[in-house]
Amino acid sequence: MTEALRVIPLGGVGEIGKNMLALEQGGEMLLIDAGLMFPDEEMLGIDLVIPDTTYLRERREKLRGIVLTHAHEDHMGALPYVLRDFADVPVYGTKLTLGLMRTKLREHRLADKVDGREITAGTPFSVGSFRCGAYAVCHSIPDAVGITVETRHGTIVHSGDWKFDHTPVDGRQTDFAALSEIAARGVLLLLSDSTRAEVPGYTPSERHVGELMDAIMSRAPGRVITTTFASNISRIKQIVDIAAAWGRRTAIVGRSMENYTKTARELGYLAFPEGSLIHPKEIDKLPDQEVCIITTGSQGEPTSALSRMALGDHRHVVVKEGDTVVMSATPIPGNEELVSRTVDNLFKLGAEVVYEAGARPHVSGHASQEELKLLLNILRPRYFVPIHGEYRMLVRHARMAIDVGVPPENAFVITNGDVLEIDERGARLAGKVPSGVVYVDGMGVGDVSQSVMRDRWSIGSDGIFLVVVTIDRQTGAVVAGPDIVTKGFVPEEDAAALIERTRQRVLEGLAETQSGEHLAEVATLRDSIHAIVSEYLYERTKRHPMVLPVIMQV
Amino acid sequence: MTEALRVIPLGGVGEIGKNMLALEQGGEMLLIDAGLMFPDEEMLGIDLVIPDTTYLRERREKLRGIVLTHAHEDHMGALPYVLRDFADVPVYGTKLTLGLMRTKLREHRLADKVDGREITAGTPFSVGSFRCGAYAVCHSIPDAVGITVETRHGTIVHSGDWKFDHTPVDGRQTDFAALSEIAARGVLLLLSDSTRAEVPGYTPSERHVGELMDAIMSRAPGRVITTTFASNISRIKQIVDIAAAWGRRTAIVGRSMENYTKTARELGYLAFPEGSLIHPKEIDKLPDQEVCIITTGSQGEPTSALSRMALGDHRHVVVKEGDTVVMSATPIPGNEELVSRTVDNLFKLGAEVVYEAGARPHVSGHASQEELKLLLNILRPRYFVPIHGEYRMLVRHARMAIDVGVPPENAFVITNGDVLEIDERGARLAGKVPSGVVYVDGMGVGDVSQSVMRDRWSIGSDGIFLVVVTIDRQTGAVVAGPDIVTKGFVPEEDAAALIERTRQRVLEGLAETQSGEHLAEVATLRDSIHAIVSEYLYERTKRHPMVLPVIMQV
Repeated sequence: MTEALRVIPLGGVGEIGKNMLALEQGGEMLLIDAGLMFPDEEMLGIDLVIPDTTYLRERREKLRGIVLTHAHEDHMGALPYVLRDFADVPVYGTKLTLGLMRTKLREHRLADKVDGREITAGTPFSVGSFRCGAYAVCHSIPDAVGITVETRHGTIVHSGDWKFDHTPVDGRQTDFAALSEIAARGVLLLLSDSTRAEVPGYTPSERHVGELMDAIMSRAPGRVITTTFASNISRIKQIVDIAAAWGRRTAIVGRSMENYTKTARELGYLAFPEGSLIHPKEIDKLPDQEVCIITTGSQGEPTSALSRMALGDHRHVVVKEGDTVVMSATPIPGNEELVSRTVDNLFKLGAEVVYEAGARPHVSGHASQEELKLLLNILRPRYFVPIHGEYRMLVRHARMAIDVGVPPENAFVITNGDVLEIDERGARLAGKVPSGVVYVDGMGVGDVSQSVMRDRWSIGSDGIFLVVVTIDRQTGAVVAGPDIVTKGFVPEEDAAALIERTRQRVLEGLAETQSGEHLAEVATLRDSIHAIVSEYLYERTKRHPMVLPVIMQV
Repeated sequence: MTEALRVIPLGGVGEIGKNMLALEQGGEMLLIDAGLMFPDEEMLGIDLVIPDTTYLRERREKLRGIVLTHAHEDHMGALPYVLRDFADVPVYGTKLTLGLMRTKLREHRLADKVDGREITAGTPFSVGSFRCGAYAVCHSIPDAVGITVETRHGTIVHSGDWKFDHTPVDGRQTDFAALSEIAARGVLLLLSDSTRAEVPGYTPSERHVGELMDAIMSRAPGRVITTTFASNISRIKQIVDIAAAWGRRTAIVGRSMENYTKTARELGYLAFPEGSLIHPKEIDKLPDQEVCIITTGSQGEPTSALSRMALGDHRHVVVKEGDTVVMSATPIPGNEELVSRTVDNLFKLGAEVVYEAGARPHVSGHASQEELKLLLNILRPRYFVPIHGEYRMLVRHARMAIDVGVPPENAFVITNGDVLEIDERGARLAGKVPSGVVYVDGMGVGDVSQSVMRDRWSIGSDGIFLVVVTIDRQTGAVVAGPDIVTKGFVPEEDAAALIERTRQRVLEGLAETQSGEHLAEVATLRDSIHAIVSEYLYERTKRHPMVLPVIMQV
């Protein structure tokens, strides 16, 4: 009997972001994507979240390559961290994907070390003994692909992020012919993007954005300030073209957008009409009706260019009455509040803001329900695993697969770390491997553990209350202190009386603890101070600051 | 010339929540509503947010009364705190509003002290020398009213929270006849609810909920678990009635919902069919198809009954396969993520969940754009001030007022603390009074200042790093320490090397600082340790923990 194929999502399944999938067979492993996730507000102080790669590190010698479907952060952003452990593992991607990857790795001084191998849609390639292929898909970044992997038990199709766009702006459709060919050879397993599994109907074409943008550019009495994702090359091209058609010249403002467009232009994925761009410094030299600005910050990120413009805090652009600000993106779930605050600030400055779901020129890069069903119907896979989605989206996507004919027992709703094993007897769940989150905070990767996070939450919620006392090692007598320092609890100026009474309690408590025949251990004194102070502060304030007793001996 | 009328929003204008409006004339002041707001996730450790009442306290002797429009928390929830300063000020409200207010004040042991004065829609009442009236409005809690106030310059109409529902479940419509009468006498100023100023069309009738709920109850193979706001009396009645019609008996689970329904039943605002209720303990005694459960937690609050059920952590209800969970509410902005997590957890337990915007049986209690315009057209006010909304909603609402004929210079988009002055010469902005937020944390009201909040955020984000050292007062020699304690920075077990090196740096730094002819001041030593440690830790980790040096002298 042939060794079973193992399919193991290590990220992005049961969540949105940090996509990573491992395939194992015959002592070899292949990884598809290595994405990151941006932290929730409750992850205090965290910069990024990446997948736990314990499982990969334990099988270091098996890993033959990492295949990237496209150059978005949630598919590629963990690479600088993953490559620290696997510097010699080759990374496969299309030309633009590798170009943008190198731009990214340059910031981490890893660009020279990576073994990047360019792939092309339609041309087979090998990763170890896996025979792979790539087919073109439409998404909100150019040169995205879906991946096929031939295994001993049949062909696996990994959809990447995709939609069916019959009129894409860059002319590159999701490749129906390639999909039909793959289907004709038979599909063992389809793994497909569930980001919009809750949305009925079809996702509109990117071209629809152009129509709305055209209407806005023609009407706007002054400058048009548009904001979208830095990586949405096709969107940026559309905006510059339409602005030029209405006699506006465009300034691209913001380092990340500059980086993306620079790489895309160098690699031939982006061309602007002659003279359509201006430097941000030139904005104020042109009449307002001849200016268009493209920038980032559609997610309300507090440090983004748009947020700073909305607070009157940007070097080149001060938002003013007569400006039309266009939000050409949908807020990421969880960021709605941040975006709303930015919109409010823009209104306060007197700008017109186009931000509402119905009005804003934006379409998703992900397939909606009818497209998801169409892909399932084209490929007719024996097994189906929904990926890239929160749990409820996976459930919805699996139900669609069942609706179009996948036997219910062949549709697997699994989450990160679950192992799906497939061999000639069928497919089944076969245990769990380590998976989870690794926090990136400053230079530290993974050193912020759950317990550190709990401490942050605890001291952040009610503050800290520090009691320092120096005692004589021989006699146990207090020779200095107790000194009290408190932060984030109550304002220090208001706390004088409370602190003085707490000092007294500590002194009394110490005297009592030391009154026996033997001197108490330092640990005992510490516990005793902790108990006395915590109880007293809760009684007085109904709060639980973290109480930290420090005892020094001289 | 008559003294000008002053209209001063102290909360709820430029934000959603903590509604409070002051009206001043002739040395007298009247307050409409005293609401609270629930904290954002970033307000670490905060329980509630209430309006800053500095302005009221400075004019203590002027305040003649507080008029409540209805018994929701965002209109009444700050009362227990406001009454601490104004215990003798009478509070005016309808029968149910006062009943629910007393239930609330009982928790704060203030129920006996409050001077509650019942008002009835259609019956004029006086607050000081203000002649007031109340008219019935439909909202998501019974017995809600809009308020009219006669002033020397004309009639002010405060809409409260309202919608036009032609087929309300309790039969009590927003009173068109009363509005027409008010309009006939002329309206100086309309203040109207902007919560749904961004939503086109009409808000559907509460009866629509019944139709959707009926379909769900008829289809559900097992138990139906519905979740809505504890105060939505009409919704609760509909659910119990429909459940009974399908042969289901209903258990109301959760203390706050029990409290609301108890008060509403006692006061005659709620009646259930004979035998339609069961105690939560009896749930497991009935066949699943004969059970309906109503509970709270539609906002994903981590401690709510539904969240605990979704985690398998509730005393009476364990969610299981076959259950149908119905979210009969829209997530409050900012809570979408919490609600999604609860939905995911319910799916993981095998329940069917009805949660999507199109499918869930829920309608808003607030007027949409066409209703807002209708009210403006009925009342035809000379001046207009949109209230109850974030800034962009106020802008949208003001634009609608202008669209239906209010002169642009008479529509005022103002925010908390702005003073609108009206006299026979017209209306104008006349400065600002103190306004803002007061944080409630445990027993403390207002003692968590912005600086405490900043400290919480700072220590919560990167943790703290404590350096304690005892020195000889005479010689400046280190006699104990430096001891280092760190929390929320890096795990203590990983930090040993870093801590040891930091200790060395501190010792070297101290030696250097003390090497001069005079002993350094303690403050100088503290600054020096702070600088050395902060710099070293940032260099090593790119993090900024709060560094707290403590120097003790013996």
